[in-house]
Amino acid sequence: MMPPHPDPLARARLLTSPSVGPAVVRELERITGRPAVPAYTTPGGPFVYVGDMLPEALRAAPGLLWFHSVNAGTDALLAAGPWPEEALLTRTVGRMGERIAQYTLAWVLAECQSVPEHTAQHSRSEWRRLPSELAAGRTAVIHGTGHIGSAVAGLLRACSVRTVGVGRTPRAVPAGFDRVVMAGSDEETVALADARWVVSTLPLTSATERFFGTARFSAMRGAGFVNVGRGATVDMAALEAALHSGSVRRAVLDVLPDEPAGPGDRAWRLPRTVVTSHSAGITADEDVVADFESCWEAVAEGRTPPLAVDTRRGY
Amino acid sequence: MMPPHPDPLARARLLTSPSVGPAVVRELERITGRPAVPAYTTPGGPFVYVGDMLPEALRAAPGLLWFHSVNAGTDALLAAGPWPEEALLTRTVGRMGERIAQYTLAWVLAECQSVPEHTAQHSRSEWRRLPSELAAGRTAVIHGTGHIGSAVAGLLRACSVRTVGVGRTPRAVPAGFDRVVMAGSDEETVALADARWVVSTLPLTSATERFFGTARFSAMRGAGFVNVGRGATVDMAALEAALHSGSVRRAVLDVLPDEPAGPGDRAWRLPRTVVTSHSAGITADEDVVADFESCWEAVAEGRTPPLAVDTRRGY
Repeated sequence: MMPPHPDPLARARLLTSPSVGPAVVRELERITGRPAVPAYTTPGGPFVYVGDMLPEALRAAPGLLWFHSVNAGTDALLAAGPWPEEALLTRTVGRMGERIAQYTLAWVLAECQSVPEHTAQHSRSEWRRLPSELAAGRTAVIHGTGHIGSAVAGLLRACSVRTVGVGRTPRAVPAGFDRVVMAGSDEETVALADARWVVSTLPLTSATERFFGTARFSAMRGAGFVNVGRGATVDMAALEAALHSGSVRRAVLDVLPDEPAGPGDRAWRLPRTVVTSHSAGITADEDVVADFESCWEAVAEGRTPPLAVDTRRGY
Repeated sequence: MMPPHPDPLARARLLTSPSVGPAVVRELERITGRPAVPAYTTPGGPFVYVGDMLPEALRAAPGLLWFHSVNAGTDALLAAGPWPEEALLTRTVGRMGERIAQYTLAWVLAECQSVPEHTAQHSRSEWRRLPSELAAGRTAVIHGTGHIGSAVAGLLRACSVRTVGVGRTPRAVPAGFDRVVMAGSDEETVALADARWVVSTLPLTSATERFFGTARFSAMRGAGFVNVGRGATVDMAALEAALHSGSVRRAVLDVLPDEPAGPGDRAWRLPRTVVTSHSAGITADEDVVADFESCWEAVAEGRTPPLAVDTRRGY
């Protein structure tokens, strides 16, 4: 994926979607040195677009040089149709790794330290010692060994948790992991059986749809399952069965296949489960500005930004 | 505080209190190479005692060479009367630093990530994004810069929290802290105003009784107060006023001046407070065995064990 050519970029208009607030728009104008134009304007000539979704009309427009997504996940964007080959796609990761790592650790430690039980006991004015579990020495298996998986692993390791990454491509062990095994290998099955927690940070691609199904869930022996990736990577019926059989001890689901979940969604009635309404790792305004700025600097120097999405791979 | 003389130690009987379970007793017998005797036996000659409290009759017995406490806090033991000058007092710290650090981080992150609110929302089948707070960049002030304070600071720092220790004696900055200020100094007052969290790991001594009173609480500007030290270091009326005024945003109290708290205790009705029934950092059987064994090895070599308590200082 090549950065846009400097000439059209110099002439390009800056378009922003309605979801981008005025404070961010001002910063984008400062970075690019040009006024922002609302997205419903039909662009004449080359343009750069910053937003959440790309309107169909603009997707087909020949002038699209570059789309910067204010979100980290670009699956919905890519699912809406083939990506125009010449257009750069970048995304906002921001402090998402750090945010999702703190979310994950919060839920891991909340269980270890009986946070909900203490809260309930307090409300009954009841003094009773509750056991706590030291996370140290337990194993977490983290699916996805990229930026977010690595941040999750690194923070769990600060609590002396052993961290096993599951990846799709062989590579050097990324920061935060004690070791990495290949998805689908026997080593993965052994790791799942040994795991106290299984954390998924997987993006949604054709290779990860229903990645967590009966095979993986039944390989677990009482693991807690935390999904901070994408909901459709989970076969919800298989998860439900695993929660009933006990192979999954509990589930913390930030994401679901169908979002937002209506009151009738079965996810609300899964045993020992909490659904957290896609609240983990929400990008903040300053994340969008900082990541767009670093992309802009790279592009201005003719480099492909590290935040560029490989549109064939999907992340 | 000198270790016992090798001659009487070689002849000493091993006494254990009823609170010490049979698995631990077997390990103590293995370490010392002698049978354990129940504590109600009147010892003839020199003896070593392992337990939680020291019966009055044994405290006065001339043969007491060494008392090993299965707990970390020895304030109740020392408050029960003057400590016999010749007797060594050691304590179990175990993985208490790690346990208390994970407890503290669990409650800090539970608030940042709205764990109780998500749990409540889930029970109403309600999909609604909740904001989360990144702990990174916030300041925690930790009172007590010893083993436990240092462990708490180190773990908070893994979440990129700035850590300021408050100590009584000037010394090099211990591991885990960004900096240390003196208790009672202007720097402490400034740090309390800046703190998102104030964590107390203080032991109870004559110098720390009601250490947290109106002066310190009113110096805070909306800090969350976490007490994992001793309950009597807090003036509860001052805390109640601070919770009402908002200078304390919320409180997580593992310890109270009067334990166990009865259903009528005012602590249960403090606003934005959770009492956790002295559950943080409970020593496990393996902690007692490991710490007694390291003390035994030191004593056998004529060294004062690092886990020896300075009975005048109180910890």
